[in-house]
Amino acid sequence: MAGAPDPVELVRRARAGEQLAVARLISMVENAGGRLREVSAALAPHTGRAHVVGLTGSPGVGKSTSTSALVTELRARGRRVGVLAVDPSSPFSGGALLGDRVRMGEHTGDDGVFIRSMATRGHLGGLSWATPQALRVLDAAGCDVILVETVGVGQSEVEVVGLADSTVVLLAPGMGDGVQAAKAGILEIGDVFVVNKADRDGARRTVRELRNMLHLRDAGPDDWRPPVLSTVAARAEGIDGLADTLDEHLTWSEKSGERDRRRRERVRREIEAIGMEQVRSRMEQLRGGAVLDALTGRVLAGRLDPWAAADELLERSG
Amino acid sequence: MAGAPDPVELVRRARAGEQLAVARLISMVENAGGRLREVSAALAPHTGRAHVVGLTGSPGVGKSTSTSALVTELRARGRRVGVLAVDPSSPFSGGALLGDRVRMGEHTGDDGVFIRSMATRGHLGGLSWATPQALRVLDAAGCDVILVETVGVGQSEVEVVGLADSTVVLLAPGMGDGVQAAKAGILEIGDVFVVNKADRDGARRTVRELRNMLHLRDAGPDDWRPPVLSTVAARAEGIDGLADTLDEHLTWSEKSGERDRRRRERVRREIEAIGMEQVRSRMEQLRGGAVLDALTGRVLAGRLDPWAAADELLERSG
Repeated sequence: MAGAPDPVELVRRARAGEQLAVARLISMVENAGGRLREVSAALAPHTGRAHVVGLTGSPGVGKSTSTSALVTELRARGRRVGVLAVDPSSPFSGGALLGDRVRMGEHTGDDGVFIRSMATRGHLGGLSWATPQALRVLDAAGCDVILVETVGVGQSEVEVVGLADSTVVLLAPGMGDGVQAAKAGILEIGDVFVVNKADRDGARRTVRELRNMLHLRDAGPDDWRPPVLSTVAARAEGIDGLADTLDEHLTWSEKSGERDRRRRERVRREIEAIGMEQVRSRMEQLRGGAVLDALTGRVLAGRLDPWAAADELLERSG
Repeated sequence: MAGAPDPVELVRRARAGEQLAVARLISMVENAGGRLREVSAALAPHTGRAHVVGLTGSPGVGKSTSTSALVTELRARGRRVGVLAVDPSSPFSGGALLGDRVRMGEHTGDDGVFIRSMATRGHLGGLSWATPQALRVLDAAGCDVILVETVGVGQSEVEVVGLADSTVVLLAPGMGDGVQAAKAGILEIGDVFVVNKADRDGARRTVRELRNMLHLRDAGPDDWRPPVLSTVAARAEGIDGLADTLDEHLTWSEKSGERDRRRRERVRREIEAIGMEQVRSRMEQLRGGAVLDALTGRVLAGRLDPWAAADELLERSG
């Protein structure tokens, strides 16, 4: 049990439902240590089955509550569920701002649920790099559905598009979210829209506004038309409807070829992101070393331009 | 005049104060076209003189107004001034949200001021890639001071640290900015703090809170202790004091070696960012091509893991 665990054995145990094996595999891919490649190779034959669902929206709309309620609903339907909560990390501490998802505590002890909170990495973009690796672990572990919850506005939402088979955009009434949604390009990425906290004032108006805006989207007769649902996640209201809608979207996207298209794009980006990461790490090994130091000195002195310096650097880091 | 301009000749004209030559050079480096390398080489011998000042803060604190007032003050002191306004770009349109800085209109016609509004690029991080190149143009054009105004919270502020000789953090009273500042790590990056809109309620309290927080920073006897200034930029109040303080910080940072240290780090990051960009662009050329397509297919089929795929991709894009 102690010592370095064998990746192939760990994958076998993860597929048998061992929580610890899943956690260990995710740690191994997160830390990008020496055995990451072995893990990756051991996972490969078992991936490609899970329904990947992205949940996104501004802070305060109730993403974690919704995720938790959806987990309960999916478990009641006999599905094995994975949850990846992607937190923005403080640029200085490198740590997650929100800490671990204690709210998910109600699911501990259920061995059909795997929950992992991830800090986004700095430079190369959080989701684009570590999350796909964690997704592969949950996928190989036999999860039927994987919920990827992203905090945040902007970039991370866009990245979800490339990751998820189905993207759920959450909003809450009275936050001026309609306008914000349009601004952030959220209308374009959602497959399903959910107005949560639907028992609050203004919920109907938010639903109406959203529907109006969505009607402006171009859509052919066979295209998916994103529905706008209402939920009160804290009381689990409307969550069964959300689960049904996600099933419908999956069916449509398989039939239409959209799922294939997205999965292909997802893998393409993943390969590219890994490639970039490898180059970055090779260059980082030159940090503080004599080569980069000398090049920097020559650029500072005006004897070399940074492009020529980068050429030399790449030559030596290859 | 027509046709492809010669970079060396353009640099000569930029140094002579020709606005059009400066604008043309920035476009050439921004578009990263074929002549970027020639431009970069032509600029190299003339760079390294300008005082690079980063101005940052949340939306609404009056960054553009402050920048404009500072430009006026610096011009009155006979300095040649460059301004780079870095806007967040919409992830979908690729365009700048705020458009060009019409507010800077009062400085048009003054040939000692060069103003450029830049959209941040997507993937590889805005400031880390295109802005240093534009900085080099303004530097080579003979600007004594270059103001880099960044909209935004989070990542872009952090990137400013790596760029600027002096970083000004702007705040406004009553926006709960004190707490926000601490959160975003803003306390750690500011060399000078400015509470703008100081004629508003709560300005004194914001100044006091900020000073208290700054006192908690570790500092040796020879370290720079970031002052907290008050301004009303719209009426140019306190802007002379800001200009004086920036001069003092420059003097200190030259004497202490801090400027050298930062410039060295700036160039290092620049070389690395260019290296990464080159690899990215080589990989992009493989997009849609047979190699990446085949690798993607093998990963989707579970016959190859993405790490092994990235290895093959890098081999073929080298």
